[in-house]
Amino acid sequence: MEPVQSAWHLLGDYLRETKILGSIQSTLYWDQNTAMPSAGAAWRGEQLTLLATQLHARQSSQRYADLLASARQDWHSGDRCSKQGRNLDLLELDLRRQQALDPALVASLATAKAEGYSRWQQARSSADFSLFAPALQILIDLRQEQVRQLAEPRSCWETLAQPFEPDLRLSRLQELFAPLRRRLPELVAQACTRPRPRSADWDLPELQQQMLGEELLRSWGRDPAISSLARSPHPFSITLGPADFRITTRVVSGQPLSSFLATAHEWGHSLYEQGLPDQTHQWFAWPLGQATSMAVHESQSLFWENRVARSRPFAQMWWERFRQAGAPLQSADHLWQAMNPLAPGLNRVEADELTYGLHILIRTDLEIALLEQGLSVEELPSEWNRRYRELLGLTPRNDAEGCLQDVHWSEGLFGYFPSYLLGHLISAQLSEAMASDIGSPEEHVASGDVDPLLDWLRRNVHPIGRSLDAEGLVQRVTGRPLSSQPFLSYLESKLDVLTTCSSPLMV
Amino acid sequence: MEPVQSAWHLLGDYLRETKILGSIQSTLYWDQNTAMPSAGAAWRGEQLTLLATQLHARQSSQRYADLLASARQDWHSGDRCSKQGRNLDLLELDLRRQQALDPALVASLATAKAEGYSRWQQARSSADFSLFAPALQILIDLRQEQVRQLAEPRSCWETLAQPFEPDLRLSRLQELFAPLRRRLPELVAQACTRPRPRSADWDLPELQQQMLGEELLRSWGRDPAISSLARSPHPFSITLGPADFRITTRVVSGQPLSSFLATAHEWGHSLYEQGLPDQTHQWFAWPLGQATSMAVHESQSLFWENRVARSRPFAQMWWERFRQAGAPLQSADHLWQAMNPLAPGLNRVEADELTYGLHILIRTDLEIALLEQGLSVEELPSEWNRRYRELLGLTPRNDAEGCLQDVHWSEGLFGYFPSYLLGHLISAQLSEAMASDIGSPEEHVASGDVDPLLDWLRRNVHPIGRSLDAEGLVQRVTGRPLSSQPFLSYLESKLDVLTTCSSPLMV
Repeated sequence: MEPVQSAWHLLGDYLRETKILGSIQSTLYWDQNTAMPSAGAAWRGEQLTLLATQLHARQSSQRYADLLASARQDWHSGDRCSKQGRNLDLLELDLRRQQALDPALVASLATAKAEGYSRWQQARSSADFSLFAPALQILIDLRQEQVRQLAEPRSCWETLAQPFEPDLRLSRLQELFAPLRRRLPELVAQACTRPRPRSADWDLPELQQQMLGEELLRSWGRDPAISSLARSPHPFSITLGPADFRITTRVVSGQPLSSFLATAHEWGHSLYEQGLPDQTHQWFAWPLGQATSMAVHESQSLFWENRVARSRPFAQMWWERFRQAGAPLQSADHLWQAMNPLAPGLNRVEADELTYGLHILIRTDLEIALLEQGLSVEELPSEWNRRYRELLGLTPRNDAEGCLQDVHWSEGLFGYFPSYLLGHLISAQLSEAMASDIGSPEEHVASGDVDPLLDWLRRNVHPIGRSLDAEGLVQRVTGRPLSSQPFLSYLESKLDVLTTCSSPLMV
Repeated sequence: MEPVQSAWHLLGDYLRETKILGSIQSTLYWDQNTAMPSAGAAWRGEQLTLLATQLHARQSSQRYADLLASARQDWHSGDRCSKQGRNLDLLELDLRRQQALDPALVASLATAKAEGYSRWQQARSSADFSLFAPALQILIDLRQEQVRQLAEPRSCWETLAQPFEPDLRLSRLQELFAPLRRRLPELVAQACTRPRPRSADWDLPELQQQMLGEELLRSWGRDPAISSLARSPHPFSITLGPADFRITTRVVSGQPLSSFLATAHEWGHSLYEQGLPDQTHQWFAWPLGQATSMAVHESQSLFWENRVARSRPFAQMWWERFRQAGAPLQSADHLWQAMNPLAPGLNRVEADELTYGLHILIRTDLEIALLEQGLSVEELPSEWNRRYRELLGLTPRNDAEGCLQDVHWSEGLFGYFPSYLLGHLISAQLSEAMASDIGSPEEHVASGDVDPLLDWLRRNVHPIGRSLDAEGLVQRVTGRPLSSQPFLSYLESKLDVLTTCSSPLMV
């Protein structure tokens, strides 16, 4: 007689195969961004559409629903383990969402995303928004249709934000963002009055930038057996298997620190993924082994980028190495200031901590307007530019510098941007908790050993997986609800020191 | 009323989806060799196994058999187009083969290939064959089981060689190889008596080698919109879509021309793929749009590597560029001689035209012995070394230099190696036909314009696809059956000139 497999194990096997398919999709995405020649886009779109269709079929099939129902039944009649219960809750929610979607819509979305990405690349390289506008309109229409099919008790934008920020409400978001809307422009104005170096007037050769990035990750303990680095137009981090972590960076002409800081940032994402409780193949397939929200993800990348790499003691450790690489630096503080221009710019990815939030507020307002308030696609460039003038005092010279700069909308990702700013808030609040527990990040950086920082995150943050959502995680780790106050306090004190520290290059 | 789709179109749609899945598999293979960290291998194996299982199911399903039978019925009752007939012949043959295989065997093979590749990498890097031997034994056992299940009227080795060299018989192979077995050792002996430079006593920086390879392909008209380059442990060419052609190369320390020549070689493969009648998505899925055999494939790569890049006029065009890159060259003939050491070595991929065939004769004999003549896996290293001593007068210092040097067996590819040597024969015979039609390759290289060479291949060779097999193609293009004579004549005359040309560096 065959041994009877438990419903739980049968469900696990099913989820595992779904995960394998999903990771194939991710591998195609990685390749698309790091190695694929541009004309490969059409066929890649076909491949991704096929996989998306297969995945949707698996994730909404009757067989899957039955497996899930049996597992739930077993759970009810068993010891009602809370972890397994949470896994089932999350899977049931996702199944409801998958089943609500018409397979034709899923296929159309996959095609539209590949097409959108390809059009966006062309539009950006020729700085011509009109090449991308029709593809964006199609993506918006399809997303609105998706929201109608999902029929959740949330607004359109809220529904689309769910995959990135589970349980987030617009009202709560606006409550968290309100102090930032008030205070950030004041801080920017304050920063602009201080004497400071203009944006970098030097550059580093590509090869040197690449070597510096590799050295950084070596010093942070990167294991090349489980991770690899590449270049892509937009830096990202992606996990392709339980022991296969990838990140990319890019070299931006005239911005000698961009690649280095992007490397730090993406590696922070990867460290979170590496620390999730998903290291065995079995666990990798279950929701609790996954990242809980993009904001938490972002808090981890921002921690390594901002609290470590942009800190004053980090500049003290690294400035001579940068000088060897060709940077005309005269002091540690010179590097520190170059890492922290604290001045408005047009580019989100290159933005510093002070101005970053403004980029997000603009994008968040615009995508809510596009999805819920009748802003037309044609108006997007002018609305974008108007808000940049108002909030940052700058006007993009063209749409490549403006509303075409980010990849997200080209793939139909709406509701994603706020996670970046929430990540700043979470990073700051977690750093306060870390400081009172083991000492501040800056102290550890100054000591030359950042391992305790990673250890603390590995003990307190990473293992939570999806057992708590973002706000639950913050409450658990810091003992307080999420707030914008720690982030604003951190910014204010950093601004104070930067404004008063001596620099040989002030103008 | 829905329009009734013809059996032909339904079959085409089915084949197209199969092709998409196959190209996803190829993308995973590309990534595995160019970007994946080593610990990613286990999960990659899972991904490849899943796809292999899906592909096998599609290629052996009743639905597919029915579609194929309907298309054949339509063909019988229609105009019996010979091209469509040939497409159906090839598909039916492949279906019979797929249906003959147990799905469990297909899954086991996919897993064993991934495992074999991973073990081979470890074994090679520690030069320890024993780490690889168990995986190789499993692959041999599975391949023998595959042959039993296929039950074709061919020997074990012949059956396994079919995917690479359709219709090839061992007796015909031995007939073609017999003159080479006699004559090549004599020519090597003759070459060894001439005064010649020792193997390269100089090297080039990696970055320079990379730039030289990129320049070579620019001069040969590479379109970066449809092709990309990367590094991998073993150079290869792969097509991932109708407009997505990839090649890799590698930099070998102390072998300053290795990467350059590998680039030329792999690009020759890619040019053949780019010239196949598969440029529309629809055609890409049909057999006639595909490469007809690995020997023909190899003839195209060898043409660009040997007839173009290793020719004397090529050295005249390029030697000063190599000198700029740091090569201590004193004349064009100095570069030419370095490109053509015509001296025995241990490495197949680095071998020149004269000795290459000996590497293949050894591998062919050994894999026939492993599969059909009871040679044990344990005996492989010593048998390998014995034959290298006898035929090339050299003994590998370790198994990494010996029987672990090639990737093929690690992935269970047996019957593949002879195609390389057949490729030399085909390249030489095609070059004779080309010479009498438009002038010799060397004349065109000397004129600085190689476009006519590509045009000739694009008109006469590439469009044949699988409408003819390798021997049929040679007969069609050259008007004669395939023979080893043109290759031996070419070698003899090259050897004559190389032996008599003056060189400032003879020792």
